[in-house]
Amino acid sequence: MGKVSIKDVAARSGVSVTTVSHVLNDVPGKRIADATRDRVRRAAEELGYAPSSVARNLRLQRSQMLALISDEIATTPYAGRMILGAQEAASKAGWLLMLVNTGADPEFEAAEIQALRQRQVDGFLYATMYHQKVVVPEALAGMPTVLLDARSADDAIPSVVPDEVGGGRTATEELIRHGHTRIGFVTNVDDIPATRGRLEGYRAALRDAGLPYDKSLVVADTSDTDGGLEATRKLLSATNRPTALFCFNDRMAMGAYHAAAELGLRIPQDLSVIGFDNQELIAEGLRPRLTTVALPHYEMGAWAVETLIANIEGHDLGGPQHTVLTCPLVARNSVA
Amino acid sequence: MGKVSIKDVAARSGVSVTTVSHVLNDVPGKRIADATRDRVRRAAEELGYAPSSVARNLRLQRSQMLALISDEIATTPYAGRMILGAQEAASKAGWLLMLVNTGADPEFEAAEIQALRQRQVDGFLYATMYHQKVVVPEALAGMPTVLLDARSADDAIPSVVPDEVGGGRTATEELIRHGHTRIGFVTNVDDIPATRGRLEGYRAALRDAGLPYDKSLVVADTSDTDGGLEATRKLLSATNRPTALFCFNDRMAMGAYHAAAELGLRIPQDLSVIGFDNQELIAEGLRPRLTTVALPHYEMGAWAVETLIANIEGHDLGGPQHTVLTCPLVARNSVA
Repeated sequence: MGKVSIKDVAARSGVSVTTVSHVLNDVPGKRIADATRDRVRRAAEELGYAPSSVARNLRLQRSQMLALISDEIATTPYAGRMILGAQEAASKAGWLLMLVNTGADPEFEAAEIQALRQRQVDGFLYATMYHQKVVVPEALAGMPTVLLDARSADDAIPSVVPDEVGGGRTATEELIRHGHTRIGFVTNVDDIPATRGRLEGYRAALRDAGLPYDKSLVVADTSDTDGGLEATRKLLSATNRPTALFCFNDRMAMGAYHAAAELGLRIPQDLSVIGFDNQELIAEGLRPRLTTVALPHYEMGAWAVETLIANIEGHDLGGPQHTVLTCPLVARNSVA
Repeated sequence: MGKVSIKDVAARSGVSVTTVSHVLNDVPGKRIADATRDRVRRAAEELGYAPSSVARNLRLQRSQMLALISDEIATTPYAGRMILGAQEAASKAGWLLMLVNTGADPEFEAAEIQALRQRQVDGFLYATMYHQKVVVPEALAGMPTVLLDARSADDAIPSVVPDEVGGGRTATEELIRHGHTRIGFVTNVDDIPATRGRLEGYRAALRDAGLPYDKSLVVADTSDTDGGLEATRKLLSATNRPTALFCFNDRMAMGAYHAAAELGLRIPQDLSVIGFDNQELIAEGLRPRLTTVALPHYEMGAWAVETLIANIEGHDLGGPQHTVLTCPLVARNSVA
């Protein structure tokens, strides 16, 4: 038998889902007949609604409310699926998830965390728009917390991040699998975990395939379309130009498309291109559609919520967990 | 003199902003010496911190907490700046803004609203990812509410939406200003306010310029890159093809770029293109960069919060307000 839902209770007691919610949550000011209240409570009991963890949380005066504190995930187009994964995992477990966007302002962030603590939030997800090392705000001290797309320097707090090395390897192996031996890496100038990890994965894949690592095939620029255009122009102007490019992200890959068009090179016949991020506006918008490597945003959000709830409920997870999730290949039409 | 901030209180009392927040909010469990507490309270009083509305709200046991309920703004790349505008307006007024993403599931939505009401949220923003008519959920009955990027059928609730007609007019006038007289409209098949409004604006601009409305120059398709490509192919295959295109959104404009490239037409020399939305990943990513019309997402978010707070605080705004905000031109390089 599947999990009993509020819909089942509503069906059995012959009232709306809203009424069930009013009765079971003791919402004040609702005119609901006592007989109806009894019927709803009996139906919930008979069906075994209000799973044991919910009942325990009520007893322990837990609010069943989590907060996701982030810099700017909700307001930028990059990592929204992280929020979706967190929201859906919370909802499935019967918890409420609030989002607070701090715009990376530490003073505002501290005030918001304070306000949430006063409102009895049981735990926090501390999330960043892209994978980075963070200093966990002091205001979170003593609260159950999980880092989402971030790690702390001392690793004292559970965290989940994408497998940047594995993702770089996956992208490069996809190009090798198609027979390419001169593979350029259009990378990013920022010294962040993604830059270091993806380069490491690129080199590992070359090494495993017995291909030499040629530094002249790695060109760094800003992590946007302009940067990708500029870096690709450099790579394609070499006498022995690469036949395939691994681009740090999909925006840089978009720049690689522009550079190829300038030179009259067709993708993928004359040049294969693979991106990173699976930014759908770009990857689905380019022609040919862009083969890329996805960040596991949804899965990271879900993992973080599940781990946070387990920690709040006191399940022994054997110390802080640090999880690294796979970045899968999303094959489209830009590699041949 | 500007508004006194928590920073001023911290500076005057010689403690950190966090300590000021702890003292003024009576956060339990903080070891702060009584002398320090006195100093902070005195500094706040002397500076006139805790503006009158905050004091009144405390007296009235308001939570100063607002909730933004939305379908999927936070998890998709389209309208995040609406959240940013709302967040910054709330923060400026000293209110906390929570976000809840419901994924457009009415049952989940009702449960979340219920939970937020139990937690003494003072008011709600009910927001949709794109401008639409909505049925306001029953769970919001009796609560101060403002619709954000949405209107209700009966207009009983304050709302803010973009000026779709004005935006369509702005886009078309920009093309007319550059001397174009055969202007195609690559539009969307969905019967939504944006589709109707932008067409009305297109027709109004033609009429005002004394240009005929030619139905064969309006082609509708799906509102994505594929749809834009397909519709543009049709428009450009006509014997007397248009010299400029107004596209329903930036994704469709991206498709128009692909269609132009297929035919060897250069933008803007052979074909001018203007989009709508100012979706930066696309508009800044295309070459030439895309001239477009922006949705006033940030401004709508800010307006909605300001109006909601005014309603909660009982300022007489003279009945429900319905505001329509301007969609401004963002000129880049695709029109000549």
